[in-house]
Amino acid sequence: MGVVTPPTDRTPKQDRSRATRRRLLEAAVACLAEHGWAGSTVSVVAERAGVSRGAAQHHFPTREDLFTAAVEYVAEERSAALRTLPVQGRAAVVAALVDLYTGPLFRAALQLWVAASNEASLHPRVSELEARVGRETHRIAVELLKADESRPGTRETVQGLLDMARGLGLANVLTDDTARRQRVVAQWAALLDDALN
Amino acid sequence: MGVVTPPTDRTPKQDRSRATRRRLLEAAVACLAEHGWAGSTVSVVAERAGVSRGAAQHHFPTREDLFTAAVEYVAEERSAALRTLPVQGRAAVVAALVDLYTGPLFRAALQLWVAASNEASLHPRVSELEARVGRETHRIAVELLKADESRPGTRETVQGLLDMARGLGLANVLTDDTARRQRVVAQWAALLDDALN
Repeated sequence: MGVVTPPTDRTPKQDRSRATRRRLLEAAVACLAEHGWAGSTVSVVAERAGVSRGAAQHHFPTREDLFTAAVEYVAEERSAALRTLPVQGRAAVVAALVDLYTGPLFRAALQLWVAASNEASLHPRVSELEARVGRETHRIAVELLKADESRPGTRETVQGLLDMARGLGLANVLTDDTARRQRVVAQWAALLDDALN
Repeated sequence: MGVVTPPTDRTPKQDRSRATRRRLLEAAVACLAEHGWAGSTVSVVAERAGVSRGAAQHHFPTREDLFTAAVEYVAEERSAALRTLPVQGRAAVVAALVDLYTGPLFRAALQLWVAASNEASLHPRVSELEARVGRETHRIAVELLKADESRPGTRETVQGLLDMARGLGLANVLTDDTARRQRVVAQWAALLDDALN
C-alpha cells in the first residue's frame, strides 16, 4: 500500500486562524496577570500578540469575550495536563493540585474574579466559568486522590483541600510564600491521607 | 467620697478629629469592597463620609495612606472582637475563624491585595500589612483552638486551616457559597480536632 494522505477538514487558513486565536488567548492571560483588569484591553493584548486590532475583534468582539475565553482556555490546558499526571501517591497529588493555584493562570483568574465582583458586565460570565472550572478540578482531584465519595465526609474533605489550595495561591500573590506553603502542604497531605483511608 | 471626674488628655476637638478619622476609615473599607481599587479615591471616600476633601487629606495625605490604614483599622477591630469570643469548643472556633473571611473586610482586603500585585505604590505597604495581620490572626487562632504549637505539625495544621478559610472567602466573593461552606467547615473542623488531640 502507498502512503495515503489522511483526510483533513483543516485548511492552512483555518490553521492560521487557530494559531492567531491561541496567541491572543495567551497574551490575554499574561496581560491580566501582570496588569490586572483595569490595565487589560483588547488593544493592549492585540499589540502584545502581534495581531491587528481588527483581527483581534474578529475573534473576540468584546473585552469580556476575550478575557473570559482566555481564562477558560488556560484552565482547560491545565486540566488536560493534570489528567495525564503519572500517579505517584497522595502527597505528590496534593502538591500538584496546590501548584495549580500558584502560577500565572491563578493570577489571571484572580484578577478576573475580583474585577467581576464590581463589574456587572463580567459577573454572570465569570461566575459561570468559575463554577464549571471548579467542578472539573474537583472531579480530577477525586480521581487522582483515589477518594471514595460514597463515604460520608469524603466530598467535603476534598473540597476543603481545594479551598486550602486557593487560599495558599492568594498568599503567594504578593510575596514568595513557597517555603511556608511546602510545610503546610506536607502536613495537610498527611492529615488528608489519614482522612481518606 | 464624692464623684471624681477622671483626668483625661482628650479635648472635644481631639474627639471630633478621631470621629472624623473613623468615619473616613469605615467609608474607605465600604468603598473598596464595593468599587474596587480603581473606583476608590480620596474624593469618593470623603463624600461618602460627609467630610471635606481637605479634611480627608489632613488625616490621610495620599490615597495609599487612606486605604492601607482602612484595612488595618478594620483588621484590628476584627482581631479585638475575636479575642473576646466566648470559648465554645473547636467547631465553633473554626466557624468563627472562617467567618472572618466572608464579610466586607475580606472583600476590601482582597481588592487592596490584588491591586497591590500590579501597583508598585501599594506593594510594600500591603505586603507588610498582610504579614502583620496574618501573624496576629494565627496567634489568636492558636489560642482559641487551644493548640499546642510545641508539638510537631501543629503550627502547619493551624496555618492550613487559615489558608482554607481564605480560599473559602474567595469562593464567596462572586456567589453566596454559604451552604457548601458550612459542610466543608464541619468536616474540616472534625479533621482538625483529631489532628490537634
